Amino acid sequence: MKIKHVLFGLAAAGLAAGASAQAKPEDQIKFRKAGYAFMSWNMGKIKQQVIDNPGSFNKDQVLAAANVIAATANSGMGALYGPGTDKDVGGQKTRVKPEFFQQPDEVRKLALAFIKEANELQKVAATGDAAAIKTQFGKTGESCKACHDKFRKDE
Amino acid sequence: MKIKHVLFGLAAAGLAAGASAQAKPEDQIKFRKAGYAFMSWNMGKIKQQVIDNPGSFNKDQVLAAANVIAATANSGMGALYGPGTDKDVGGQKTRVKPEFFQQPDEVRKLALAFIKEANELQKVAATGDAAAIKTQFGKTGESCKACHDKFRKDE
Ligand code: HEC
Ligand code: HEC
Repeated sequence: MKIKHVLFGLAAAGLAAGASAQAKPEDQIKFRKAGYAFMSWNMGKIKQQVIDNPGSFNKDQVLAAANVIAATANSGMGALYGPGTDKDVGGQKTRVKPEFFQQPDEVRKLALAFIKEANELQKVAATGDAAAIKTQFGKTGESCKACHDKFRKDE
Repeated sequence: MKIKHVLFGLAAAGLAAGASAQAKPEDQIKFRKAGYAFMSWNMGKIKQQVIDNPGSFNKDQVLAAANVIAATANSGMGALYGPGTDKDVGGQKTRVKPEFFQQPDEVRKLALAFIKEANELQKVAATGDAAAIKTQFGKTGESCKACHDKFRKDE
């Protein structure tokens, strides 16, 4: 019931992919962790080039990284939080908190905020303005963190 | 030496991200597996909607999936095959074959072929023409398989 509620909310917000393509719970966990991990690699590349080592700034690489983050944000990851994915299953460990399945409105709010920042990061990256990218990178990172603070267990 | 050679080839072909952002070998393996796994989820969604269950075709979802695949293809994953990533390390298992590090020209050829097909899939997905997407989905899948046949160990 609660899980259906979340999925419905996500679907209504255009965040969920077709339920018919639903993967096994362990694969859903694997895929969502993969999506986040691959985003974090791309966030790391942007951080490297606009904060840690600005001399290495490369517009094309930063835009390519921002494209991954925006595309991932818009890929309907809500579909990867289906029934049976609230706990470790089939050898896949998950750090999702129970609250994720209990507070669909809050999840939707934070997910939409993240999508907005990621889309904006992609737009700003296309301009090649390193200072503006740095600011928007910070906002995007905040939107990742907002979700983790509420819905991801510490390691 | 050989690994440097591969990276140089990939960098020359625009496939590698800045070497200064180099992650630890175990993280490189984690990130490349994550990138591939997340692509495979997105390939699965396209397959679902243009082959398995064409009645479920949704242009926006298919385009969103194609955007992930194209963005991942263009993200410079060559940088994730650095020194020390040819074997299991730090708890991360890898299925990459030694040939990957010995045949940089072949890797580059297959990687560029994949990027071409992924970019084309993104273009075709934007048209919403399900039949054309199906054809281009097939070509993209072939380009994944061509690389796996040569450079990925069976499970
Ligand atoms: C709407 C919520 C939400 C947003 C937005 C979000 N995350 Fe997460 N993230 C999670 C949850 C929940 C998990 C735990 C997933 C699990 O273990 O099943 C997670 C896990 C992760 C992980 C660990 C993956 C692994 O290998 O186990 C990383 C890294 C990560 N997120 C990075 C990011 C980055 C970077 C962003 C933004 C660019 C982001 N996340 C945005 C909710 C979110
Ligand atoms: C240029 C070579 C190349 C291309 C192109 C390629 N792959 Fe792979 N793929 C690999 C290699 C090498 C591995 C093994 C990575 C490892 O274990 O370190 C792999 C691993 C994988 C895995 C297993 C990931 C895991 O969780 O262990 C999947 C799934 C996958 N690829 C799917 C795809 C899909 C889908 C595409 C195309 C849309 C694709 N690959 C394109 C080389 C490639």
